[in-house]
Amino acid sequence: MLKMKDDDKILLAHGGGGKLTRDLIQKVMLKYFGNPILSPLKDSAVFELKGQHLAFTTDSYVVKPLFFPGGDIGKLAVAGTINDLAVVGAKPLYLSCGLIIEEGLELGLLQKVLESMQETARNAGVQIVTGDTKVVEKKGADQLFINTTGIGIIAPDHSLDESGPQIGDKILINGGLGEHEASIISSREGFDFESEIISDCAPLHDLIQSILRVSRKVKWMRDPTRGGLAATLNELVEGKSFGIRLQETQIPVKDAVKGICELLGFDPLYMANEGKVVVIVAVEDAERVLEIMKSHPLGGDSCIIGEIVSEPMGRVVMKTEIGGHRIVDMPLGEMLPRIC
Amino acid sequence: MLKMKDDDKILLAHGGGGKLTRDLIQKVMLKYFGNPILSPLKDSAVFELKGQHLAFTTDSYVVKPLFFPGGDIGKLAVAGTINDLAVVGAKPLYLSCGLIIEEGLELGLLQKVLESMQETARNAGVQIVTGDTKVVEKKGADQLFINTTGIGIIAPDHSLDESGPQIGDKILINGGLGEHEASIISSREGFDFESEIISDCAPLHDLIQSILRVSRKVKWMRDPTRGGLAATLNELVEGKSFGIRLQETQIPVKDAVKGICELLGFDPLYMANEGKVVVIVAVEDAERVLEIMKSHPLGGDSCIIGEIVSEPMGRVVMKTEIGGHRIVDMPLGEMLPRIC
Repeated sequence: MLKMKDDDKILLAHGGGGKLTRDLIQKVMLKYFGNPILSPLKDSAVFELKGQHLAFTTDSYVVKPLFFPGGDIGKLAVAGTINDLAVVGAKPLYLSCGLIIEEGLELGLLQKVLESMQETARNAGVQIVTGDTKVVEKKGADQLFINTTGIGIIAPDHSLDESGPQIGDKILINGGLGEHEASIISSREGFDFESEIISDCAPLHDLIQSILRVSRKVKWMRDPTRGGLAATLNELVEGKSFGIRLQETQIPVKDAVKGICELLGFDPLYMANEGKVVVIVAVEDAERVLEIMKSHPLGGDSCIIGEIVSEPMGRVVMKTEIGGHRIVDMPLGEMLPRIC
Repeated sequence: MLKMKDDDKILLAHGGGGKLTRDLIQKVMLKYFGNPILSPLKDSAVFELKGQHLAFTTDSYVVKPLFFPGGDIGKLAVAGTINDLAVVGAKPLYLSCGLIIEEGLELGLLQKVLESMQETARNAGVQIVTGDTKVVEKKGADQLFINTTGIGIIAPDHSLDESGPQIGDKILINGGLGEHEASIISSREGFDFESEIISDCAPLHDLIQSILRVSRKVKWMRDPTRGGLAATLNELVEGKSFGIRLQETQIPVKDAVKGICELLGFDPLYMANEGKVVVIVAVEDAERVLEIMKSHPLGGDSCIIGEIVSEPMGRVVMKTEIGGHRIVDMPLGEMLPRIC
């Protein structure tokens, strides 16, 4: 890790999901806030309250443009927080909505965002129960930021296997990489591709609950957002006594996403997703979980993309299409434009 | 209420706590998000989960300057959300922390804010258990915004009397008005007063719990932040079959706050507080509650400042020092500079 000094400046990359984000969280946030509930750094805090296991998570959404193919900041804010609850095995129940609005925003635009939030929440069986609105001066914010914080409840018979990943466990994903980030970049840059790239932004709780219903051997789940699959898997293996081997030929990437990657020199492994979940499951349950994922509307392109291996410890490697091996490292800084 | 059209722009006053804020919430937010838990528009949502009554509240903090006499954005963010939980009778338990940072912020400054958050939380017996950090481009935000969202639990034997205010009930406050806003304004403008004005920013859960321990007839509590005492009381009486009469001679205002008000033409009734709670209690319990408030470190200047009256219905009036009556209306727009 790099040293951090008081007169260092916060960089965009500190929010990018890579090494600098990890350093900021581990060396600064944990230094002040560290406690037994926060420190595991799961997607949601999990705690017991009067015999119930609750999950609690927060996320601020600062995406631009506010509207993009396949979604908008409102849908993203509701789906993203639902997903952070879902990956710890919780059924999402209640959300808060904190708006920070730049003076001068059109009311009609705000209403479209709120409508989208409500529709996404209603479809997911979740209620937005408390809110707050702040307005700041022109150029004091970028149009609209949304914080959503969520509460969910973990049913004992739908929880994860807390023993953690073991050598031989399989790694699954419910579809193609990079669709959210590619959609944002192409709508921001005004690219005119033949086929528009649609963000995968979607609430995953129903898919995830159906996985937990068919297997009690799900070891780990996470939605690979900022920093993509590469950052998510590197966070998992860092400092652990196991590694991950991916099979490049098995990793689904849509042609339209490949196209934008070739054009701009991006790597889908590092691109943000908003409707994907990485699932690690014991080998004996892998086919059953794959089957249930494939039968779900949000999992038609599900694949087994790799496995937990003993070597190299603490690293992610990928067997490439041409048969070699490539190390998939944690992203360092700004490999890609800021999109969240 | 004013009509709102799609091409209307959001103004600073929509976040000011007055009539425009109320219109935005009632005509826009409730239109999309309205549900039985949200719609009462309490400071916290209150719902039942497996037999427990939980409180859940969110607030974003966009104050500038980040540091001011008596506090900083971090202390404010923790205390403010604790207070929103406390006024519905909840014991605050867990907080989330969502940071939106402008690229270029000094790490040392961020650390001071986090340290202050942690110190305030620890002193209040509350844990920060989940967080999120986003970094946006220079001029994409104003240094640092913090969202805190909190969960609390309501003990059945410490709850409010839900029958609501009755004619004759007394209105109490735990000290002088306007100290937070006066502190922000004077530090922002660089005024050089003889005595520095200290923000009243403080977590009120302990004071509030001690009130609820001595009276089962507390009808209503709220912390008068944006829009001050005037907005808070007007929100209560609007559309109700009772009114409020205040006694100007009984309303505590420190000399230093009076000084800045005279200089700048402000009215303490409309100025934001961050360590005050307005308590409405049945007349027979008023003296007992006043006594316990006065004995608390955050309530030495507590007073009975008015009462619930039958006329004028739906209005707040104040008997002035010189013996006349003045209507205390809801603030309309930007009477004061934006401070939160």
